[in-house]
Amino acid sequence: MTNLYTDKRTLVTGGLGFIGSNLAIRLVKLGADVEIFDALIPDMGGNKFNIEPVKKDVKVTIGDLRDEGKIAKAVRGKDIIFNLAGTLSHIDSMENPFSDLDINCRAQLQLLEACKKLNRGVKIIYAGTRNQYGKAKYLPVDENHPLEPTDINGVNAIAGEKYHLMYDKVYGIGAVSLRMTNTFGPRHQMKHSKQGVLNWFLRQIIDGETIKLMGGGGQIRDINYIDDVVRALILAGASKNANGQVYNLGGSALSLLEFSKKAINILGRGNTRNIDFPKDRKNIEVGDYIADYKKITKDLGWEPKTSIDEAIKKTFGYYKRYKKYYW
Amino acid sequence: MTNLYTDKRTLVTGGLGFIGSNLAIRLVKLGADVEIFDALIPDMGGNKFNIEPVKKDVKVTIGDLRDEGKIAKAVRGKDIIFNLAGTLSHIDSMENPFSDLDINCRAQLQLLEACKKLNRGVKIIYAGTRNQYGKAKYLPVDENHPLEPTDINGVNAIAGEKYHLMYDKVYGIGAVSLRMTNTFGPRHQMKHSKQGVLNWFLRQIIDGETIKLMGGGGQIRDINYIDDVVRALILAGASKNANGQVYNLGGSALSLLEFSKKAINILGRGNTRNIDFPKDRKNIEVGDYIADYKKITKDLGWEPKTSIDEAIKKTFGYYKRYKKYYW
Repeated sequence: MTNLYTDKRTLVTGGLGFIGSNLAIRLVKLGADVEIFDALIPDMGGNKFNIEPVKKDVKVTIGDLRDEGKIAKAVRGKDIIFNLAGTLSHIDSMENPFSDLDINCRAQLQLLEACKKLNRGVKIIYAGTRNQYGKAKYLPVDENHPLEPTDINGVNAIAGEKYHLMYDKVYGIGAVSLRMTNTFGPRHQMKHSKQGVLNWFLRQIIDGETIKLMGGGGQIRDINYIDDVVRALILAGASKNANGQVYNLGGSALSLLEFSKKAINILGRGNTRNIDFPKDRKNIEVGDYIADYKKITKDLGWEPKTSIDEAIKKTFGYYKRYKKYYW
Repeated sequence: MTNLYTDKRTLVTGGLGFIGSNLAIRLVKLGADVEIFDALIPDMGGNKFNIEPVKKDVKVTIGDLRDEGKIAKAVRGKDIIFNLAGTLSHIDSMENPFSDLDINCRAQLQLLEACKKLNRGVKIIYAGTRNQYGKAKYLPVDENHPLEPTDINGVNAIAGEKYHLMYDKVYGIGAVSLRMTNTFGPRHQMKHSKQGVLNWFLRQIIDGETIKLMGGGGQIRDINYIDDVVRALILAGASKNANGQVYNLGGSALSLLEFSKKAINILGRGNTRNIDFPKDRKNIEVGDYIADYKKITKDLGWEPKTSIDEAIKKTFGYYKRYKKYYW
């Protein structure tokens, strides 16, 4: 793997965010040439401190994917684009569907159009989401499961993915989509719960606050640690066979209550309280989700390696050290 | 059926276009109260002459779905919305993806948001398309066939459909999608071939021009006559059981060459010539398409009734009489 990325010219959109920054750090270690493109949209997770360990080794462009001139400059000459820009909030997308459309559809099209015009030889890895499936009709959910999302964000993520696969088919741009599940770990924003509830629970434990579990927290999520997701991105970027494919990621199926209990045990303090679903949440709640990720194991040899306990310990360790940069 | 539409307050978006105007005429006959909402975007098929037979019986609002104030006024108090606004051009969507996004995603969201705010009891029938499927992996194509479009228009039509189904699920707005196939007949625009090649072939025969068949015209299309499509819309609008469902329409599977030959025989003149696919067409050509429409037959009792010969005769008759209003 090391050799494959040596001197590769990579672009990471959303590269100051949670997944993007962890990936950028890994790419630098693999010897890649890394440019980060990030709009630093407030509350979206971008944080300059995230790339502290590699800040001298990467080029950072602050810009919006919808800025045609800037994105044109950024895609030119790149070998691989990790396209992690976008928003993931279910609730926000229902309150502001047009803003979600802009960020998750228009911006994606702008990037792809730039590649079509200036760099058709490029490879793009798209960050899909389990949110595209909606309520599971069966478990575990494989890639052929119907796509019936319960929120705007899920619909727009489908469109974003299908644009990528269509540009792969029609214009010969290499594109892969990884449908990610709930991911947690260092460098996730810690200011609100809207882009991921797992890191939010960890913050509440750190702060001595009670974790509020909607509906008792019995709903199962399939949980990944960030380092495993980064490895999947690296593998997908390196494999030509992955072009045109969609892959589920997955890891440990745990209820939110079980996850909270594990974290409370590890830190030795904390507590939970059951609350009713707020109405706006209840409407879009998808119930249990467990991913079938056999396809990526078979094709790319990926599987998650970090145990949830170890992952929680590492995450607590990171925020203990760097809390002031996050909240 | 007649009773079900008596005094029903209906809105037909895209109501000056091909399908919308034929539907509006039928709705008036069924005793419905009809408002037409149409932006009359140049080259999109809207034509005031289309509603000549009912122009005194319908209210016409010229406006764009993206005009929040106008659409709010139009959805208020309606029982059923037939949402036929949108563009269908494959080629245009590849040349102007952002314009297609605007018309097929943003405008659809604007309509749904207006219903969410002002009229959750409404029922909406969405005009989906076979274009959502892309190249057929098997024939006939049923509703569970993967959605892998080969153009932007197909991706955006998927998003448009999924918005509707999501608003059905989450907000209780009744929504149905009819995935239409190649439809022809009276009131289709006749100025260019970008929104439907069948009517274009008929114009070429009328004008004494040679029909150019790309790749020999062997590709099969599933062909519907407009009156049958209108009946499907009427049935879907009247059935509560259809809410949340997606239905294929379909009719006669014929190659474009066979269709042309039928039309040439009926008019007693005309000829065809084979040409190569232009490059931009070849990239997005989907090959043969045959619809499986058993689901709508089972659920709503719909099936096409007009033979292709009869349909061609009726269409020739219409344009013979009203040619000057179309080209």
